[in-house]
Formats: sequence, C-alpha cells, structure tokens
Amino acid sequence: MSDFRQKALDYHEFPIPGKISVELTKSAETAADLALAYSPGVAEPVREIAANPDDVYRYTNKGNLIAVISNGTAILGLGDLGPMASKPVMEGKALLFKRFANLDSIDIEVKHRTIDEFVDTVANIADTFGGINLEDIKAPECFEIEKALIERCSIPVFHDDQHGTAIVTSAGMINALEIQGKKIEESVIVCLGAGAAATACMELLIKCGAMREKIYMLDRKGVIHTRREDINEYKKMFANNTDKRTLQDVIEDADVFVGVSGPDLVTEDDIKLMAPNPVIFACSNPDPEIKPEVAMAARSDLIMGTGRSDYPNQVNNVLCFPFIFRGALDVRASAINDEMKVAAVKALAELAKEPVLPQVLQAYPEVDSMEFGPNYVLPKPMDPRLLPRIAKAVAQAAIDSGVAGIEQLPEGYMAE
Amino acid sequence: MSDFRQKALDYHEFPIPGKISVELTKSAETAADLALAYSPGVAEPVREIAANPDDVYRYTNKGNLIAVISNGTAILGLGDLGPMASKPVMEGKALLFKRFANLDSIDIEVKHRTIDEFVDTVANIADTFGGINLEDIKAPECFEIEKALIERCSIPVFHDDQHGTAIVTSAGMINALEIQGKKIEESVIVCLGAGAAATACMELLIKCGAMREKIYMLDRKGVIHTRREDINEYKKMFANNTDKRTLQDVIEDADVFVGVSGPDLVTEDDIKLMAPNPVIFACSNPDPEIKPEVAMAARSDLIMGTGRSDYPNQVNNVLCFPFIFRGALDVRASAINDEMKVAAVKALAELAKEPVLPQVLQAYPEVDSMEFGPNYVLPKPMDPRLLPRIAKAVAQAAIDSGVAGIEQLPEGYMAE
Repeated sequence: MSDFRQKALDYHEFPIPGKISVELTKSAETAADLALAYSPGVAEPVREIAANPDDVYRYTNKGNLIAVISNGTAILGLGDLGPMASKPVMEGKALLFKRFANLDSIDIEVKHRTIDEFVDTVANIADTFGGINLEDIKAPECFEIEKALIERCSIPVFHDDQHGTAIVTSAGMINALEIQGKKIEESVIVCLGAGAAATACMELLIKCGAMREKIYMLDRKGVIHTRREDINEYKKMFANNTDKRTLQDVIEDADVFVGVSGPDLVTEDDIKLMAPNPVIFACSNPDPEIKPEVAMAARSDLIMGTGRSDYPNQVNNVLCFPFIFRGALDVRASAINDEMKVAAVKALAELAKEPVLPQVLQAYPEVDSMEFGPNYVLPKPMDPRLLPRIAKAVAQAAIDSGVAGIEQLPEGYMAE
Repeated sequence: MSDFRQKALDYHEFPIPGKISVELTKSAETAADLALAYSPGVAEPVREIAANPDDVYRYTNKGNLIAVISNGTAILGLGDLGPMASKPVMEGKALLFKRFANLDSIDIEVKHRTIDEFVDTVANIADTFGGINLEDIKAPECFEIEKALIERCSIPVFHDDQHGTAIVTSAGMINALEIQGKKIEESVIVCLGAGAAATACMELLIKCGAMREKIYMLDRKGVIHTRREDINEYKKMFANNTDKRTLQDVIEDADVFVGVSGPDLVTEDDIKLMAPNPVIFACSNPDPEIKPEVAMAARSDLIMGTGRSDYPNQVNNVLCFPFIFRGALDVRASAINDEMKVAAVKALAELAKEPVLPQVLQAYPEVDSMEFGPNYVLPKPMDPRLLPRIAKAVAQAAIDSGVAGIEQLPEGYMAE
C-alpha cells in the first residue's frame, strides 16, 4: 500500500473514526443548565417558534447549518458506488464548510428507488437546515433533482459539482482571457464533457459574457450539434448548428478548451491546432485531459489550469462553496441565484489580482510565485480574504436581486 | 415575562442561536491535511467502503452518530405544533446524548403528508446514522412508524417517548414495589392514559413480571374493556374483561397507579381508595395527575414519583436513552430489543440501591436524602455510574440475545 494511501486511511480511522463530531455550544453541566436546555425550559422557544415560525432562526442552529446530501451515484471520479461509500466525501465536505466558513455541516446519505423519492426525502427534511449542498449526484438526474428541490425548498439548494465548479472555472477563465488579451464574447470555447459540471460551466460562462453559438460541447460521441437525436434536453441546450463533428474539428482555432471529461483525451497535436494564446482548463481529476507538461511542451503561449493542487491554477471548488453559502445564510437568502453566482465569480477573479498575503505564501512553500499572471489566475484556498470577499459579494447580490430575508448588510459585515 | 421564561429564551438565543455545533475531530489546517480529508485522500476510504460496506464504521463517524427525528406532532405536553417548533426540543435531545454518553447527535425535523411518506423519508436517510431516536410523534401513528422503521432499518430505532419512559418507570416501579413489600406479579395496576408512553410502560412492566389481567388501562372514555368497540388495535391489547368502567371502579384496592395522561385528573379521594402501601407514579408534565403534596396529605403509606425534578423520584428519560444507545452502538446492535430494555431496567433499579456518590449529592443541594427508600427509588441524572452500568448491561444483553455485531464485550469495556 502506498504511503499516501495508508496515511489517508489512518487519518480517517484514528484516533476515532470519521472527521466530524457534534458539540455543545451552551453550558450543560448543572441540573439548572439542563432545565433550560431541555424540559421544562425548552418549551419556551417551542412556543415562540409555533407562534412565529421565523424565530426558528433565533432559537436554533438552523441558520448556520448546512446539509451535505448525496446518493453516491457519482463519487469523485470513481462513479456510482452507492450512498454509504460516499460518506467519507460528504463528511469531508462538512469539514471544509466548517474549516473555511465556520458553517456547521452534517452529511446525509440517501438511498432511493426513484428520482421522485430522492426529491421527496430531501424536501421532507430540508427545513431542518439553513441550506442544502447537493454533492456527487450523477447527470442528468442531478439537473432534475436540483430543479425540483429548488422549487420545493425555501432554503438555498446548490449542487456544488455543477455550480461550484462553474464559478471557479469562470473566475479563472475571465482572468486567463484577460491575460491572453482575449474578449470572452469573441472567444471560441470547446468543452469536452457534457455532464453536470460541463453544462453548468458553460451556462455560467454565458452569463459572464460568452456567446452560446461560439461554444462547442462534446460528449462521448463527439460534437453536440442540432442534427443529433440521441441527446437529452440538457445537452440539447448546447447543440450547435455546425458541420463539425470531432474534437479536432472544433479545437482548431479555438481560444479556450475546458475539459470536464476524463484523463488523457487530448493530445499535443490537438493543442497545437488552437488559436494563438489559448486557455486550457483540463479539470478531469486526478488525471487531466492533457498533462500540463505535455501541453506546455507543445506550445508556450498557453495558460493552463487543472483540478490538481500540484500544478498552477487549480480549479478547486473549495474556493467557492463555503463562502457562497456563508453569504447566502447570513442574509437568509431563499436561493442561490445567478446574480449571486456571478458576484462570486467576480469577487474570486478580483482577489487573484491583489498582492498575496505573506501567510498564504508560507502555506504553499512549493509554489514559486503568486503574482497575477499565467501561473496565478485564481487565489489559493488558504487565502483568508476568500471568506470576506466572496461572502460579502454574494450577500449583497442576494439583497440586490431580492432573494434575501434582510434589506441591507449588517454594519461592518465581513469587515477586514 | 417570567424570569425563568426569559432565561430559557436567552439560553437558546445567545451568544449564538441553538445549542449544538459541528466540529472537526481531525486536523484541517494545512494543505497536506486537506489532501487527506478531502480530494485526493478521501478516495481511499471510499474505495474501502465500496469493497467492504462494514468499513463505514471504521472510516466515518456513523458508529457514534444518532439522529433525533421528529415530525412535531406531540411536542412535550404541548401537542401538534409542527416540525419546526420541535427543533429546540430535538436539539436539546442531541445535547443530552452528547452530555451524558458522548454520542454525536443531530436533529432532523420531518414534514410529511402520510405515515408512509414519513417512514420512507426516515428509512431513506437512516444509513447515515448509527441509530435513530424517534421523538415527540403522536400516538397511535408512532406505533406504526416505529414498527415499520424497525423492519426497514438495519440500525437501532427507538421511540424514546415510549420506551425510555417505560424503562425508567419500570425501574422505579420495581424498587418502589420492593420497598412497599409487594410482588409485581400480584399487583393490581391502574394506568391512566392510553397513549404511546402508557402502552409502552405497561408492556414493559409485563415483561418485568406484571400480569396483563391485573392491569386496568383508561383512556378519555374510561376503562378499556373487552366490550368496547371504539378502541384501536393498540388499546385492544390492554382491554380487560371487566365490568369496571370508571377510574374510581379500578383504583379501589389497586396497588399501583401510573399516570401518563394530564394534570389534576386524580383526587385525594381516589388515592384513599387504593390498597395499603400503594405506589403512585403521576408522570404528566409539568403538572402531574395529582400533586405530591395532595397525595401525601391523603395518606402517608404511599411512594410517589412524578415527571418533575423538584419532587423526589423523578421519572426522567435521560436516566436511560443516552446509555441504552451507547451500549447498543458500542456492540453495533441491529436493534434495541426487549432483552436490552429489561437489562436497562434492572441496571437502573440496582443503581438506586447503591450508596450515592458525594459529587451527586453536591449536584443536588436541594435534595435532603439520596438513600434507597420511598423518596429515592431512582438514581439522579448526574450520577456518573449511569453510563457504565446501563451501557454495559445493554451491550451484554444485545450480545446474549444475538442482535450485536460483535461476539463479546471489549476487555475493560465501561470499567469504572
């Protein structure tokens, strides 16, 4: 067994199994404490909430509580391994919510026979939480599930594999295009992969200025075009009226390549076909669509990002999801809408342009440079400014777009 | 607003809303930590669990995690106020699980249209947890719900309002009858109330030796007898072939009165009708069926318990549920069966006979005496021996009755 593999297993097993626990935030030492925490004192907040449902945010932890929910049908890059096998990932996500945004988070693994049953199950328990982060649910079911849950729940529901990835990709892309001197609305974009993340990435890039007709999406069978009849409604939205059929057909003269597919699907020769100064985000994990060293050897005028932490420009969802939920919950938003997502993109992109803090440099001793440029189009996860910048931008966007439960940000909110 | 009421509300609201949080049990400071906790390291326990489902207990917190689940249809004595109003109670229960048995516990409030939908919802998320504590669900639905969930779940499902109350009542009753010189199998028992707690109490007393035909249960319409046709299947099990119709008819010469009904339904005159040396457990909360001072004024040969902490012999579920789940989870029991409940009754009853610890005396400065006798038939919640005694007895009973996942207790388990 490799060292890293053993370390990862040991980390999860010892000294106690798992990564999270539930702790008390109030004193529960004396009989007097317990009389407040439970019977008879607890009857008082019960009566208040029964009279004023909104008081549940006042007297319980609902307003700081995120459920990380999965059915285990698309665990990391490992596929459908069932709900139980997804538990370490969901606990890990809960850990990240706490670590980065001080949100209390608990994982829920759901077994179900039909999509409707999954939706019913989650909708029935949703009020327990302040927000729901869906995770590792396979496409195309994830689209239907998220849509139905957003309709049925009065709290934010966010499928991170779609929108977290989309937000971070879009932020990095905007910066990379700026460095390359390209306008997003003029850029030809090739998206290899047509699953949940791919679809969400392209939709959000369009909201950030990309043109739908300049996007070529490919699934396993090649380019998605308007004459194909084997594609579902989600892929149909990206069907291009084109005669191009293969990756080589579309990557020629393309400005941008986004890979959300599988390892080693792109060659050196493919890369050489692209327009001058291209941007390549090869996000397949752990093995990208093309290795950075291979791509860089093919041409030196590119900017490259991957899903890996050991290369520059990591597209890492943790740059986004803790903070977008922090902002949404802080203004009691009823949803995470497009305005909030775009606000997160902008805040994240802007942060990469600021001088890096010394403590962030120290946290990544292996990284040579963190100066805005081809090798630094996205901030690093350990950047403490992510929380205030993104949460504040998202919270303000929620207020401005009318989905917040309060009318203005509290004074000094997320002051740095 | 009363002082206590304000204190209870403040306790829940400040400095942060609610009573529980989620915390990390592993280091998550550095990028290296995060690579173990989440991608890529987390893929290792995922693969292990996919290959060996039982490893979910090894690499996640499932084995120490209890869901406290309610639909809010019978909150405390306050009635059906809906799922959201039950949240402070369920959080309170989670707090008690942690405080008394170091079990991580999270509340889940469920909304639903039908009983089947409630059962489906809970069954679908059940594998997330090591055990499920159902709470504040009204009768008779709670019986059907618990039965269905026990059938469908491979983890312990326990409706505390039924069985927790039954275990503590039975333990106190066994000791009270011993002090009064009565045999349980010869005792005539009157049970005022025919809901979830009443039914469970009587069933467990029967398993502890009481005779079914000597039990008279009453609902709002009077004695439940074999000629009544207005009773559901759960009450039918306690229908007595008798001509007696009223509380007065049955309480005359009765040895035991158990009240699980409502305040002030029993008079001084009723009490005077009972046999010599009776036992009265008036458990309606916060106001018992008869106040202890009224009952004691009527006759001095009785032993009395209530649900209140400000009178002797409090029938308090916290004496049981944290520890029965601790024992069940520690041996990975698939259920909490009758053998385990009876073991908990015996362990709890025995503990009351032992000399009280000094620290327990100090925790209850207002209590005059804690010596086994008419005013001390049950231990106090702050007694630290509850955990080892009950958990060990329950764990052993699970092993002996064949529902445990391990064959013998770990060496030194719950050593004091």
